[in-house]
Amino acid sequence: MSSSLVISCKAAVAWKAGDALVIEEVQVSPPQPLEIRLKVVCTALCRSDFSAWESQAIFPRIFGHEASGIVESVGEGVTEFKEGDHVLTVFIGECMTCRHCKSGKSNVCQVLGLERRGVMHSDQQTRFSIKGKPVYHYCAVSSFSEYTVVHSGCAVKVSPIAPLEKICLLSCGVAGGLGAAWNVADISEGSTVVIFGLGTVGLAVAHGAKLRGASRIIGVDTNPEKCEKAKAFGVTEVVNSNDCNEPIQQVIKRMTDGGADYSFECIGDTEMITTALQSCCDGWGVTVTLGVPKVKPEIATHFALFLSGRTLKGSMLGGLKPKSDLPSLVNMYINKEIMIDEFISHNLRFEEINKAFDLMREGKCLRCVIHMPK
Amino acid sequence: MSSSLVISCKAAVAWKAGDALVIEEVQVSPPQPLEIRLKVVCTALCRSDFSAWESQAIFPRIFGHEASGIVESVGEGVTEFKEGDHVLTVFIGECMTCRHCKSGKSNVCQVLGLERRGVMHSDQQTRFSIKGKPVYHYCAVSSFSEYTVVHSGCAVKVSPIAPLEKICLLSCGVAGGLGAAWNVADISEGSTVVIFGLGTVGLAVAHGAKLRGASRIIGVDTNPEKCEKAKAFGVTEVVNSNDCNEPIQQVIKRMTDGGADYSFECIGDTEMITTALQSCCDGWGVTVTLGVPKVKPEIATHFALFLSGRTLKGSMLGGLKPKSDLPSLVNMYINKEIMIDEFISHNLRFEEINKAFDLMREGKCLRCVIHMPK
Repeated sequence: MSSSLVISCKAAVAWKAGDALVIEEVQVSPPQPLEIRLKVVCTALCRSDFSAWESQAIFPRIFGHEASGIVESVGEGVTEFKEGDHVLTVFIGECMTCRHCKSGKSNVCQVLGLERRGVMHSDQQTRFSIKGKPVYHYCAVSSFSEYTVVHSGCAVKVSPIAPLEKICLLSCGVAGGLGAAWNVADISEGSTVVIFGLGTVGLAVAHGAKLRGASRIIGVDTNPEKCEKAKAFGVTEVVNSNDCNEPIQQVIKRMTDGGADYSFECIGDTEMITTALQSCCDGWGVTVTLGVPKVKPEIATHFALFLSGRTLKGSMLGGLKPKSDLPSLVNMYINKEIMIDEFISHNLRFEEINKAFDLMREGKCLRCVIHMPK
Repeated sequence: MSSSLVISCKAAVAWKAGDALVIEEVQVSPPQPLEIRLKVVCTALCRSDFSAWESQAIFPRIFGHEASGIVESVGEGVTEFKEGDHVLTVFIGECMTCRHCKSGKSNVCQVLGLERRGVMHSDQQTRFSIKGKPVYHYCAVSSFSEYTVVHSGCAVKVSPIAPLEKICLLSCGVAGGLGAAWNVADISEGSTVVIFGLGTVGLAVAHGAKLRGASRIIGVDTNPEKCEKAKAFGVTEVVNSNDCNEPIQQVIKRMTDGGADYSFECIGDTEMITTALQSCCDGWGVTVTLGVPKVKPEIATHFALFLSGRTLKGSMLGGLKPKSDLPSLVNMYINKEIMIDEFISHNLRFEEINKAFDLMREGKCLRCVIHMPK
């Protein structure tokens, strides 16, 4: 069903960097051509929402990008979706027609790539407003709203039997970690893995590594609570780097007889990328960086780390192509082949959304799932 | 035949950084256990000899590591070689027994790795002396001498029908370039390649890329003579970066509709590694660094280059395992499947060795092959 009606609904609006979100009445435009309007069912808070909310300059804004929802209406030209379809949103789209989408080897869509300006890809406008004044998007998703509009390339139709309150985590964090382990690093059986940062993404890497049959999965964090939870996700040994009397890379090299086969930087700290490179072995060590650094965007590393046979790769959504790959992850969850529930530390009502920010700041959560009003 | 005799012969000795080599009478000890003594037949001058000669502190020293020779005598316990065997020397050995040698995926031997202190791996002593005073080695090879002693793991037996005055280039430069294209980057048919630096190594990458069926091979250099010679090695387009009015990475991105599939840094300049990363495409771009930087050893790059799907790999001897891989390259040359002759721009007599250094300084040569006295 196409719709020409503006919807008024509740959204959690960020008015200023770092200020608590305010639940406001917002107007959501009808979907434009090739767009769809969703009723958001559940949305999680991801670290990059938090970082952008803390530090960026585009306001007022509606954050949230890791979400599940149900199609409310579709714009002109949309044939892939219809009212009632269950979907996951995605922060990088898949247009299915650009050189990258068609390549079969890239998820960096040239049409619906990461949107950083707070607007929609198609017309550089917002679909949200309050009393006629624009409210900006985040990553072209903005799921901290009862209704949102996304490009049809930024949503993925999933099995209607999958519980939306769980699979929303496959929209970003858990999928990104699994994909990094499987696609980007391509972890082999019996290998040794070290993971820096035991948040949801790092633990999803551990889960992926375990499913690939890695024999040792060493987790590194400074938060004792995270260290404690990690074993449930496949981590075999935990190192709290605050407890070490020497650089952590030396600890790891000693533990692994020269370095791990694979190392993952899941913190968002470019200095830790260097540490991760130093923690993997000469000859065939592969380091994957998943984090988005907040402070120092430059990676600085000695060339000899590469000359001696290391590889550094980046991972965005684990190299997964959203439409091609996420539905199968959903099916794997249905078939109990991958875990999701264990990554959910808190379930919150929409009105409690600021509590999710508090928990993340305090390092007290894995994923907080926010349940939108029914 | 094992030998206990000291040989007195001519060697080109570097007495001081940057000073012309002096041909001196040196004493060459007999090979110690697991070592072999060679009569050097031909040796080429490689850029890393030149850089070390210009800048390092270990003197007096005998440089040279890209060489062919004939076994003169063998030390205790050597069963792989006998007097008269034809060999290539290698600057990284293959002990065949360490974890890396046995892994099948690394050429970073843990026993006979890059030797930087000017001595032999086994006893940290030299095998050269002048009137009883030690003369240091370079990379455990030191081929700028009529006779030299190397560890048996740092030599590779090759077909006796292969011309030693040609195949010496497979000891380092040409093999390193081919291996980088084939093993490290694993170039696929129809792909676009950009090569920074059109010296022997860069042109060997081009040759390897062409043999893999790359459809575009873009060469970048600042030396008009090198640009001119490049097409003979498979380079399809040449860009002299001095003639560009904008950063070279922008030129390459425009030429290639967003960036090459593979980029190679063959200069030895860490800033150029960043340029090479920027010159390859989002999603699947692979950058390989082959050079040994003289000045700034730190690579500094923006994390987003990785997040958007690039990979950075280092290449030492093209990832080739000397004993496992070099004999087949020699056979490929015999079967006319790879070129070597075209990389030889000058043939010099041993007495003319300093001319090779002059030609390299002036950028007037590809490989200078130095023919030792018969």
